[in-house]
Amino acid sequence: MIKIGIVGGTGYTGVELLRLLAVHPHAELQVITSRADAETPVSQMFPSLRGYVDVPFTHPDQARLEQCDLVFFATPNGIAMQQARALLDAGVKVIDLAADFRLKNIPEWEKWYGMSHACPDLVAEAVYGLPEVNRAQIKTARLVANPGCYPTAVQLGFIPLLEAGVIAPASLIADAKSGVSGAGRKVEMANLFSEAADNFKAYAVGGHRHLPEIKQGLTRVLGDQVGLTFVPHLTPMIRGIHATLYGRLTRELDLQALFEQRYANEPFVDVMPAGSHPDTRSVRGANHCRIAVHRPQGGDTVVVLSVIDNLVKGAAGQAVQNMNIMFGLPELTALNNVPLLP
Amino acid sequence: MIKIGIVGGTGYTGVELLRLLAVHPHAELQVITSRADAETPVSQMFPSLRGYVDVPFTHPDQARLEQCDLVFFATPNGIAMQQARALLDAGVKVIDLAADFRLKNIPEWEKWYGMSHACPDLVAEAVYGLPEVNRAQIKTARLVANPGCYPTAVQLGFIPLLEAGVIAPASLIADAKSGVSGAGRKVEMANLFSEAADNFKAYAVGGHRHLPEIKQGLTRVLGDQVGLTFVPHLTPMIRGIHATLYGRLTRELDLQALFEQRYANEPFVDVMPAGSHPDTRSVRGANHCRIAVHRPQGGDTVVVLSVIDNLVKGAAGQAVQNMNIMFGLPELTALNNVPLLP
Amino acid sequence: MIKIGIVGGTGYTGVELLRLLAVHPHAELQVITSRADAETPVSQMFPSLRGYVDVPFTHPDQARLEQCDLVFFATPNGIAMQQARALLDAGVKVIDLAADFRLKNIPEWEKWYGMSHACPDLVAEAVYGLPEVNRAQIKTARLVANPGCYPTAVQLGFIPLLEAGVIAPASLIADAKSGVSGAGRKVEMANLFSEAADNFKAYAVGGHRHLPEIKQGLTRVLGDQVGLTFVPHLTPMIRGIHATLYGRLTRELDLQALFEQRYANEPFVDVMPAGSHPDTRSVRGANHCRIAVHRPQGGDTVVVLSVIDNLVKGAAGQAVQNMNIMFGLPELTALNNVPLLP
Amino acid sequence: MIKIGIVGGTGYTGVELLRLLAVHPHAELQVITSRADAETPVSQMFPSLRGYVDVPFTHPDQARLEQCDLVFFATPNGIAMQQARALLDAGVKVIDLAADFRLKNIPEWEKWYGMSHACPDLVAEAVYGLPEVNRAQIKTARLVANPGCYPTAVQLGFIPLLEAGVIAPASLIADAKSGVSGAGRKVEMANLFSEAADNFKAYAVGGHRHLPEIKQGLTRVLGDQVGLTFVPHLTPMIRGIHATLYGRLTRELDLQALFEQRYANEPFVDVMPAGSHPDTRSVRGANHCRIAVHRPQGGDTVVVLSVIDNLVKGAAGQAVQNMNIMFGLPELTALNNVPLLP
Repeated sequence: MIKIGIVGGTGYTGVELLRLLAVHPHAELQVITSRADAETPVSQMFPSLRGYVDVPFTHPDQARLEQCDLVFFATPNGIAMQQARALLDAGVKVIDLAADFRLKNIPEWEKWYGMSHACPDLVAEAVYGLPEVNRAQIKTARLVANPGCYPTAVQLGFIPLLEAGVIAPASLIADAKSGVSGAGRKVEMANLFSEAADNFKAYAVGGHRHLPEIKQGLTRVLGDQVGLTFVPHLTPMIRGIHATLYGRLTRELDLQALFEQRYANEPFVDVMPAGSHPDTRSVRGANHCRIAVHRPQGGDTVVVLSVIDNLVKGAAGQAVQNMNIMFGLPELTALNNVPLLP
Repeated sequence: MIKIGIVGGTGYTGVELLRLLAVHPHAELQVITSRADAETPVSQMFPSLRGYVDVPFTHPDQARLEQCDLVFFATPNGIAMQQARALLDAGVKVIDLAADFRLKNIPEWEKWYGMSHACPDLVAEAVYGLPEVNRAQIKTARLVANPGCYPTAVQLGFIPLLEAGVIAPASLIADAKSGVSGAGRKVEMANLFSEAADNFKAYAVGGHRHLPEIKQGLTRVLGDQVGLTFVPHLTPMIRGIHATLYGRLTRELDLQALFEQRYANEPFVDVMPAGSHPDTRSVRGANHCRIAVHRPQGGDTVVVLSVIDNLVKGAAGQAVQNMNIMFGLPELTALNNVPLLP
Repeated sequence: MIKIGIVGGTGYTGVELLRLLAVHPHAELQVITSRADAETPVSQMFPSLRGYVDVPFTHPDQARLEQCDLVFFATPNGIAMQQARALLDAGVKVIDLAADFRLKNIPEWEKWYGMSHACPDLVAEAVYGLPEVNRAQIKTARLVANPGCYPTAVQLGFIPLLEAGVIAPASLIADAKSGVSGAGRKVEMANLFSEAADNFKAYAVGGHRHLPEIKQGLTRVLGDQVGLTFVPHLTPMIRGIHATLYGRLTRELDLQALFEQRYANEPFVDVMPAGSHPDTRSVRGANHCRIAVHRPQGGDTVVVLSVIDNLVKGAAGQAVQNMNIMFGLPELTALNNVPLLP
Repeated sequence: MIKIGIVGGTGYTGVELLRLLAVHPHAELQVITSRADAETPVSQMFPSLRGYVDVPFTHPDQARLEQCDLVFFATPNGIAMQQARALLDAGVKVIDLAADFRLKNIPEWEKWYGMSHACPDLVAEAVYGLPEVNRAQIKTARLVANPGCYPTAVQLGFIPLLEAGVIAPASLIADAKSGVSGAGRKVEMANLFSEAADNFKAYAVGGHRHLPEIKQGLTRVLGDQVGLTFVPHLTPMIRGIHATLYGRLTRELDLQALFEQRYANEPFVDVMPAGSHPDTRSVRGANHCRIAVHRPQGGDTVVVLSVIDNLVKGAAGQAVQNMNIMFGLPELTALNNVPLLP
């Protein structure tokens, strides 16, 4: 059994990790920490876990994380970078679900996240945990930077086109829509039911932290700089991201075949039949990304529709997928659940 | 492997059965029928099932249901009663998720359902599939009448009180609230998003088909007639039933202990700690019923809060639980999924 | 023009008051205060008011409220009681939308609201602003205690029955369901979209602050003590209260006629035709209360369905109705808007 | 008083027209027709209109529409074109809220709408009812083609840029999101609550009927062909359209000033301050269009955010605005309602 520690388990990413790990046949939760809720039973905060997770939160000072095989950080940004070094030194593997190790460019990270980086040297070692791109490196990684939710949906949609070199890379557009849980379990005005329900809006059009992450990923895939306009929107639903991606085709090809071939061996990327419109509920609660590719009116604009559950493939599910890879387990382990529809 | 047939799989009960059976280690879907959608791949109608259910719907005339071990009817009322006899004669077990075999009183059934009953003789044989009451009979049943969604939530909440004889049985009140999926995947005006969203209303206050079913069940438990006012409401959510039950206490007792003892050995009934308010999402996608019992201001009114997922414990999940019992499998088989929260 | 002051206008009650007063032909907003948001333009916080309310919030210390004709308190509980005396002394009329002056019994108020009352003497003078009961007193009042949202819906439903003395008063049940805006624009975990959406639950079953308010009102109407079980529920919608009321009939009568006659001259109470099920959206944005009365199965239980918009008839609209009465204006002034459906 | 007839008033556009006209001081509803619901009181179908609209639906054969001053067609496509000629000949003005007179190119109309046009000659006469472009022609029009919902939001966002000639017209992108009421009050599977709630998806990426309408309008404004990719999405909210528009800037300019000047005199177009993100609820129930213009990262992509209420500025409100213009009334008449927030 893999001994698991979770740091910061009171958010949506945390409870989702617990949901998935509760039925993982090779994982054993050793400790889950929370400073504010130490000693509160986890299942008191999340009654959905009654009967599945029967431990209390542990105060960080009492958690013996170094005795775990793997520690997940389901914390706000800026926590994992303070603790990762000691854990790695103790032989513990680390998956950070926050953003501390996602950007290779430290000054850029510091600009977007508004703090100094506590361990820039580990950034170089960290592997960006998008298995569809980095599976081999993840397998041997000690430290995985789990991708953001928008970056997962957007990159998986653009990758086949950029790898094939068939779109103009300077003017990509990603119009992305997220359910409210993407904002986390933070008590902020904009996330109140009466503010977010029956309402739709864009936000952070001037610049969102996921922009540099996406650009870094696409640039790496292309081998050259990409230009990207990224507009996130808040949608009145709990879970789900829908990315609508636009690019200008630079040559003729069979788009459907391109996508199908690229993802033929990926257990969690489902290229839908031509003409499809994937909906977010078709991946609710599951680790799948469903993609459809369109070429409206036969013009030179390609439109890719990419949907994920932001808490699963966009966070906790991808983290478990990474864990499975790191520990040599079948990738589907604990992730073989059917989406909840309706 | 248990060979499974499903009649009428295009509704929400059908897709939910498929979701649960897809990961059932001892069930093998042989055939799923639909008259209107014959030859359409199931996963085309429900993309959530892509990769899990890779068969098309079969026209009822081509379905060799008699070769199954078990047939579920996920059909409108009035279908199962026409086909059950032949299946039973062929040695096939039958679980009807509709109402054909729920009411023992045939004239009453015919009054509420507006049709003649096609096989009244089987009604006597049919076992009402509420395992918390009828587990022993279900074990040996050939024909199970799977309970309605409201009746499940309401009965599980009243049963401990009636069995203990501690409430006045003549004036029970069940104020029940259901998500919209309870109305099925029927294309009706009242179920449109723009009609049901951001809105709340009672319906069928004058009389709902689940009223006689609940009264029959409670009367059986009490061994005497009960009087019940049952008011269902439509709530702007997809899944979930919340029953708020009121009764007048006739003697002092420890209500919390009563409920905890009654359900101590029930794998799917969770009596919450005193003072709790179970929410419907705490059972979303799962076969649990969570119950809390209150006595406001220490008065003589007992208030029971009972929540289920109408499509799981209120329909498909309870059907699979019954199947597990009928075939001697552990009750939790394929039903050990953690609720989806948030 | 009536010079209006609003204390504490950053909540939902405040913005709703502004919406209604913006088109009131005899009201002129002089000042609206907010400590935290002083100098912020109101329409920056609520873009819906752009073009209608073009003033900033004023710091309470700079607000010359004594120069107003009428001051509304749209504040948390405990504020109005500290300022009402000075305003009344300056000849300003006061309508408190919070609870400071609702309960006549000071110790009971202090128990439920957890603070000492700052001006018990004014409590006796204050008129409870339910026009359907107290219109005459409101007309001459200096200080009006605007009723709570649940109390408005519940009292309007029970009043005809209690006035007529046709139900047993000792065991009334009010099962009430509220939209999330009823909790105010407070940043609390339970009111987050991802917590409240697609979910339903009861709360405060052990005791809610509106319980003594309702009991006081019903007791006054009956002229004798009533016994009431009140269970509020949180519903995933923004606005709306649906109260489902249960009582035991003590004699035969024409319930429909009773209700129609009681409210024949009330501009904002609409008794629906027999057999109706009013939905909350049918009063969305409007000051109406719609009521239907049922007697299921012809038994001795009467069921009343009563719906209001909690922010209008349950708060700001009723406050404007009271203002109209206090200033001798037609009651419909500024309240003649058609509900928004869908 | 202007004598008003409404043909086909049982849809959302119809009830919204009734809501607005109910408080119009110069309009008098003469007749509202419905074939299927003749003689049903309008307020029985829409209880929100109780007390405001106290007439029944009239069978089309009994409706004396030629005695009206103005007839609105709130019908499916293909009805108005059959009746407009006779009404115009009788001196009645006509506003069609459907699409019969929107496209000047008859073969293109016939291709997208799948039927032959019944009176192509009137198409030339019809004025496209977007007041921000065609106010002068509307003033004298007999026949107005009321714009579609998406076309209103998209055109108002692009017009300043195209008129000023500052974006490359060949590769415009309109990523638009609509509430479910945009699909009308049609009983279709995709519009069921349990299908559309807590879900997000694109649809008609291959081609939507509003595409040629938008292209026609933008081409007219530019004086040259535009290339447009238009992707509509279904959002789990009742009302509201959010259009996110992308274009490539071809020269430097002050975008904020451009938009503010263009709409300085428009009563219903609100250019928000720089950096704003208008949300759909800020126009709920109102005839406003709110617009914000962004230039992310200072690059050459301009992003315009444009929101309307699809049933008001996108349908019934714009129709009343057109009526006001046609009859020489102030444009704000009956349209001066404050948006409903929250």
